[in-house]
Amino acid sequence: MTNPAQAPSEKKKATSDKITPRAQDFARWYQDVVLQGDLAEPAEVVKGCMVIKPHGYAVWESLQAELDRRFKATGHKNAYFPLLIPESFLQREAEHVEGFSPELAVVTIAGGKELEERYVIRPTSETIIGHFFAKWIKSWRDLPLLLNQWANVVRWELRTRMFLRTTEFLWQEGHTAHASEQEAREEALRMLHVYGDVAEEVLAMPVIRGVKTQAEKFAGAVKSYCIEAMMQNGLALQAGTSHELGQNFAKAFEIRFQNQAGALEHVWQTSWGVTTRLIGALVMSHSDDRGLVLPPRLAPTQVVFIPIYRKDEERSMVIERTNLLAEELKKSGMTAEVDARDGYTPGHKFFHWEQRGTPVLVEIGPREVQSDSVVIRRRDAEGKQPSQASGLNATIRGMLDTIQRDLLQKARKRMEENTVRADSFKEIEEILGGVTAEKGGGKFIAAHLKDDPQSDAKLKEIKASVRCIPLVDSYDGPGKCILTGEPVAQRVIIAKAY
Amino acid sequence: MTNPAQAPSEKKKATSDKITPRAQDFARWYQDVVLQGDLAEPAEVVKGCMVIKPHGYAVWESLQAELDRRFKATGHKNAYFPLLIPESFLQREAEHVEGFSPELAVVTIAGGKELEERYVIRPTSETIIGHFFAKWIKSWRDLPLLLNQWANVVRWELRTRMFLRTTEFLWQEGHTAHASEQEAREEALRMLHVYGDVAEEVLAMPVIRGVKTQAEKFAGAVKSYCIEAMMQNGLALQAGTSHELGQNFAKAFEIRFQNQAGALEHVWQTSWGVTTRLIGALVMSHSDDRGLVLPPRLAPTQVVFIPIYRKDEERSMVIERTNLLAEELKKSGMTAEVDARDGYTPGHKFFHWEQRGTPVLVEIGPREVQSDSVVIRRRDAEGKQPSQASGLNATIRGMLDTIQRDLLQKARKRMEENTVRADSFKEIEEILGGVTAEKGGGKFIAAHLKDDPQSDAKLKEIKASVRCIPLVDSYDGPGKCILTGEPVAQRVIIAKAY
Repeated sequence: MTNPAQAPSEKKKATSDKITPRAQDFARWYQDVVLQGDLAEPAEVVKGCMVIKPHGYAVWESLQAELDRRFKATGHKNAYFPLLIPESFLQREAEHVEGFSPELAVVTIAGGKELEERYVIRPTSETIIGHFFAKWIKSWRDLPLLLNQWANVVRWELRTRMFLRTTEFLWQEGHTAHASEQEAREEALRMLHVYGDVAEEVLAMPVIRGVKTQAEKFAGAVKSYCIEAMMQNGLALQAGTSHELGQNFAKAFEIRFQNQAGALEHVWQTSWGVTTRLIGALVMSHSDDRGLVLPPRLAPTQVVFIPIYRKDEERSMVIERTNLLAEELKKSGMTAEVDARDGYTPGHKFFHWEQRGTPVLVEIGPREVQSDSVVIRRRDAEGKQPSQASGLNATIRGMLDTIQRDLLQKARKRMEENTVRADSFKEIEEILGGVTAEKGGGKFIAAHLKDDPQSDAKLKEIKASVRCIPLVDSYDGPGKCILTGEPVAQRVIIAKAY
Repeated sequence: MTNPAQAPSEKKKATSDKITPRAQDFARWYQDVVLQGDLAEPAEVVKGCMVIKPHGYAVWESLQAELDRRFKATGHKNAYFPLLIPESFLQREAEHVEGFSPELAVVTIAGGKELEERYVIRPTSETIIGHFFAKWIKSWRDLPLLLNQWANVVRWELRTRMFLRTTEFLWQEGHTAHASEQEAREEALRMLHVYGDVAEEVLAMPVIRGVKTQAEKFAGAVKSYCIEAMMQNGLALQAGTSHELGQNFAKAFEIRFQNQAGALEHVWQTSWGVTTRLIGALVMSHSDDRGLVLPPRLAPTQVVFIPIYRKDEERSMVIERTNLLAEELKKSGMTAEVDARDGYTPGHKFFHWEQRGTPVLVEIGPREVQSDSVVIRRRDAEGKQPSQASGLNATIRGMLDTIQRDLLQKARKRMEENTVRADSFKEIEEILGGVTAEKGGGKFIAAHLKDDPQSDAKLKEIKASVRCIPLVDSYDGPGKCILTGEPVAQRVIIAKAY
């Protein structure tokens, strides 16, 4: 429907949709990109929650599909456990309850009555799943038990930011039980690498794979593995965790199996999860001052065609051609859309799709129709380039691959350039001194530091933390702890973090 | 790993996994089929909840994929809104709060503190979504707004049964806003037909598409459409609903748009949903006294191959052949698995897969390898039949199509045979008198009855209800109300129901 009368108000709206530059205030820039990119908005009426809008949810669906495929390929099956957990369940594992009780949302009334046993909304499901594992696992033949759950969880957080930390969030939680410590360890590492691979191959976000310090590990775990990414402000972001739970929950919930020799043993467990936080990580890895930048493998629409015309007689010719090219692209497996909305200027349309991170825009006007060409804009680069219309599928497919690769390389280069070594606590203090989420300037610091809660406490004083002890030491091996002088095996990564 | 020592205990387990015959107690039969079919189990520690086990969740995933594809093809996008809803929101729509308040689970404590404004766990999301629609919708250009959400909801139910009625359940809820009543009505009907098509084409479950009486409509709706199915015990089951909400929520949440003439109007809304209850409907539509029967379009594994051998020298030959045939099947797009577990007898394996509803089992022994043949068992029929191994893909694909069609026809025939007419209340009383979920014997009764809360109340006395006023009258048109003698336009469907 042509209705040019609507265009001015839309244009006015567009110019007010400014994005704060990163250099001015990184935190506001992030919020602006999420809002203008139409990913989500705060649900002010529900403390600390957000609404994931269709564009943001479509990114999550792509990410879910990538993860789910890999979980199934490694032998896991999905299941679903209750949202509500009897309050007493959390108390069975001492560290677990200590870690989670300050964050719980508690249901005390249901069906019009005060409940005798109160329920908490799951902050994570180790306890309720532990209860069922105890019922299901009898013999070594029932092991390994490899489950995953796609679910929502609630953790009452004080400071929240869209995607990065919200009271309710969406995630997957893997829960597995094994006959030996060795098998459980292999599983925890296997899933860590699945996360690392998805981060790098799909999100185009380089990560460091490592182990959390004892002070930073999951409440109830024996060992927590993690992937850590660097945002454009140099802050670290924990992008996924995989835990060896040892026999802690097995003992708390009596999960035992008869081994091949006929004796009863407690199982060895793992749990692992990634959340909608990954979308926040994605935003802060690639986006720019013009708005969202999405890697092609996660973009809900990889290519948007924008037909350009002035006169009515041009319109049908241009749109026909545009539709034809878009159809061909779709047939060859790419996702494409034609923005044939009337009443919006081409400038408005470019702006619209650019803010939403569309990897490739293709413009076609009467001149392009006549010369059998198109004009292509890459979201992750400046300017535009003409291209032959024939062979467009191959051109764009190649360009999407290039964008995916370039984004990863650019992020990797940034991480490398912003990783430094330090050999004293004072040096760390100096490097991270003025760093905030707003101002940026963060670094990853590789330093020799003992895995001891006192080290973590000392770093906390300057609002920094050990992000991980890398699985692969790409530095200089053993050295002396910068706090105690004791010998330690390798450098750890220290940073300010989300 | 060969370990025949384990087999006896497994065999013993198998024989204790009996399923109560339908004729003896249909309700127990249902529970047995769900449990032995490994679909779900009650989560006794969380009142009225269940755990959806991997096999059940895989059925749900297939169903989700079928629905989601159709939702997207009709222009809907997925989004995600908060689990928690401010308690005051529900009170804004008078009928809505009246309908849902007895069933609410209330969060009164969070983060260690008593909350000032309490939250309810969503029983459905019209209110919270209404709040956001009011923020997002400004102009006729923003309409129609077509969203869907995949989520969990909680309704505190007194009597619960796995899948059919659980305190927490999984569902999708569509929420749309339109510029006119006409458009909203078309949408509500469009989605009703999507549900009807999925029920018939995918679940192989015939349904009657109709309208709920005023007394039975959704709390807050103007008109509720539904699909009603008949279970094997003759009870009705509401399998999906689609509501015209009129402007009720638009007025409660001030959802207004500027129309093309520049005036402000309230939007017209719809909502529609189906739940994990559909899996219960599936079970009660097709399963038999041997256990679960799954239509091929929803079976997590369509074909299971069972290699049969006695001696070790037969083993590798048989398994090699079996794997080869299974791979070929998978390549041509079917889902297949080889049950090569050692330590289980072939009899145990047939029993195992039969109880889980696998549509086709293929057995291959040394004799079959030599004669280039296989033996096929159809889950929905008795006995087995030999078949050439060459051309097996086509044979089995054809068989899967036949099973899908046969299940629908069988269920349709049953529904037709158990639908009767009645022309007095007394007749209805007689027909439905002894009917219970346990004993069965239920019927659909087509009768002339006025759409008036008094009619619904009268039927409630005999534990029956109007299931729907069919969209298509396949009976004798207008007649006189069996209670009041007043003229009514058509017969309605009356039954006892879940």
